[in-house]
Amino acid sequence: MNRPRNDNFLRALLRQPTDYTPVWLMRQAGRYLPEYGETRKRAGSFLQLCKSPAFSCEVTLQPLARYRLDAAILFSDILTVPDAMGLGLYFSESEGPRFERPLREEWAIRDLAVPDPGEHLRYVMDAVAEIRRALAGAVPLIGFAGSPFTLACYMVEGGAGNEFARIRTMLHERPDLVHRILSINAEAVIRYLNAQIESGAQAVMLFDSWGGCLSAAAYREFSLAYTQRVVAGLLREKDGQRVPSIVFARGGGPWLEAIAACGCDALGLDWTIDIGAARRRVGEQVALQGNLDPCALLASPEAIVREARAVLDSFGPSDTGHVFNLGHGVPRFTPPEHVAVLVDEVHDYSGRRRGK
Amino acid sequence: MNRPRNDNFLRALLRQPTDYTPVWLMRQAGRYLPEYGETRKRAGSFLQLCKSPAFSCEVTLQPLARYRLDAAILFSDILTVPDAMGLGLYFSESEGPRFERPLREEWAIRDLAVPDPGEHLRYVMDAVAEIRRALAGAVPLIGFAGSPFTLACYMVEGGAGNEFARIRTMLHERPDLVHRILSINAEAVIRYLNAQIESGAQAVMLFDSWGGCLSAAAYREFSLAYTQRVVAGLLREKDGQRVPSIVFARGGGPWLEAIAACGCDALGLDWTIDIGAARRRVGEQVALQGNLDPCALLASPEAIVREARAVLDSFGPSDTGHVFNLGHGVPRFTPPEHVAVLVDEVHDYSGRRRGK
Repeated sequence: MNRPRNDNFLRALLRQPTDYTPVWLMRQAGRYLPEYGETRKRAGSFLQLCKSPAFSCEVTLQPLARYRLDAAILFSDILTVPDAMGLGLYFSESEGPRFERPLREEWAIRDLAVPDPGEHLRYVMDAVAEIRRALAGAVPLIGFAGSPFTLACYMVEGGAGNEFARIRTMLHERPDLVHRILSINAEAVIRYLNAQIESGAQAVMLFDSWGGCLSAAAYREFSLAYTQRVVAGLLREKDGQRVPSIVFARGGGPWLEAIAACGCDALGLDWTIDIGAARRRVGEQVALQGNLDPCALLASPEAIVREARAVLDSFGPSDTGHVFNLGHGVPRFTPPEHVAVLVDEVHDYSGRRRGK
Repeated sequence: MNRPRNDNFLRALLRQPTDYTPVWLMRQAGRYLPEYGETRKRAGSFLQLCKSPAFSCEVTLQPLARYRLDAAILFSDILTVPDAMGLGLYFSESEGPRFERPLREEWAIRDLAVPDPGEHLRYVMDAVAEIRRALAGAVPLIGFAGSPFTLACYMVEGGAGNEFARIRTMLHERPDLVHRILSINAEAVIRYLNAQIESGAQAVMLFDSWGGCLSAAAYREFSLAYTQRVVAGLLREKDGQRVPSIVFARGGGPWLEAIAACGCDALGLDWTIDIGAARRRVGEQVALQGNLDPCALLASPEAIVREARAVLDSFGPSDTGHVFNLGHGVPRFTPPEHVAVLVDEVHDYSGRRRGK
């Protein structure tokens, strides 16, 4: 299949002119939508939903039926990769994601192996293919994965709690073991994202959600180096079309220049960074994606309009190379009609500025 | 009473020469010490411990009996101030601090008033006086408070969860109400810290633990502006001795220059910032306190020595104006003997560099 009919998102990532500033939202499919709750009930659990291509496709498309979004993103979870490595992912109601067999022993780390995405992650590839068919060329589909370091945080801790003290201790105590995990993760993520591209993903995003918990030196050694390795290993083209890559580095404000130089096409910003300042720092090298404070969606429609315009204004009137997004996921208690206000305002305001 | 016998800590804060790099640790008194557990059991609960001057004094002194620390810090909690405002502080075993009456309604925010520290916070002043007597001039005593914004996060949310979404929404929806809370908090914190100084605190520290969750513009408007107001309102001298102030801004890496210009004597750094880089940015204006990754204390003694030296080396051989500390509190499961390794190494290594 060729270029989607609405390719503003892909063009913005490559810093090419667009009709308006394209917009999609992290966690645009999810718990704030009542229809998502319905599907999840039918699926039985979050994990069963993720592991069913049909349900994953259904949920991926739900926000596109409601809003004029410029991209779809695969509905899945970053922890499917360590699950495919045999760590035994499950979700606890109170504690979120957990692993039955976290990486606590040296032998387990030595035994860790790169999973074949065509085998243990087949269900993800089937979902990507099914979503691409269902989209029928309307908007592009984004594939994604967790960064090697972010995955390692969960794999060593066994879950999300305790500020990932176990891996942060291991960095000091046994850096060799951490590097072993990260090498395996990097190779696994490369194969996983390339398989998504082969199955139909038209852009890919790498989530480094926890690199920001590291010191500057540790960030370079344990997070950025492996992000860079992943980006270097990605397929750059599929069917004659370039496949752009986005790196989202939560808490990465201090290191934007270094991340922008990692080879990716675009940088995802969290909401703590002023996007205009970020553009002045790295906007000649990469496109920028972001970065409205997600909590703005919980405020009134008037506040949403004001805050959306503030982000667009901060990026600047010459707005090539901007994909509008939140600085983190859509909050759980967002009123669904607020998302429509945001998406429409981004289109209208940015389109007007282009004189359309 | 006059200058403490060991005044290296106070001198370092004022960027005067010291015999070695002084060291104390955030949460140096607390759960990792078995004797703390004993005292807490006798007190009945954490809150009863905080509210008893005798228990607070006992716990404050425990780490000083074990380690060659260069300062004591009042054992208390930042949420005593909103508790004194009538919000009803309690501690839930699973969720941490909670308020019975969080600030959810406009009338409650309008009714909020500055508490008299001599009345509702009398127990804190009694603890400060008792600790000063017990220290008998050995090392200085640090008083502390939460920053106006950090207190407001808990006061509006009612606890620590949910990434403080309620106040982050209120910033967009009703900034006037947030400013009202922050004005009251700033005045309350000024009176509270000044009362601690009058009662015997020889330095004061302001904890802005959550300003880092704000966008750059919101940080300036809602956090830094009120930190600045507090610092400007503090007593600068007591009994002819200067009383230095420290601002700890967790996640404040992007805004170090702005924080350093707020009028404080020293800046507390979290562990994500390279202290040498921070010194190059602001080291001519303020002293720096920090910033070992707390998780280093969970690693081996060899790793602790290596990482402690790395922080001292990064600050530089000419080390006037450095107070060694962690970048956050001592982790709960720290082996107590590891703290001795750290404290001794900081003294020995920095003393040797000065040729002592």
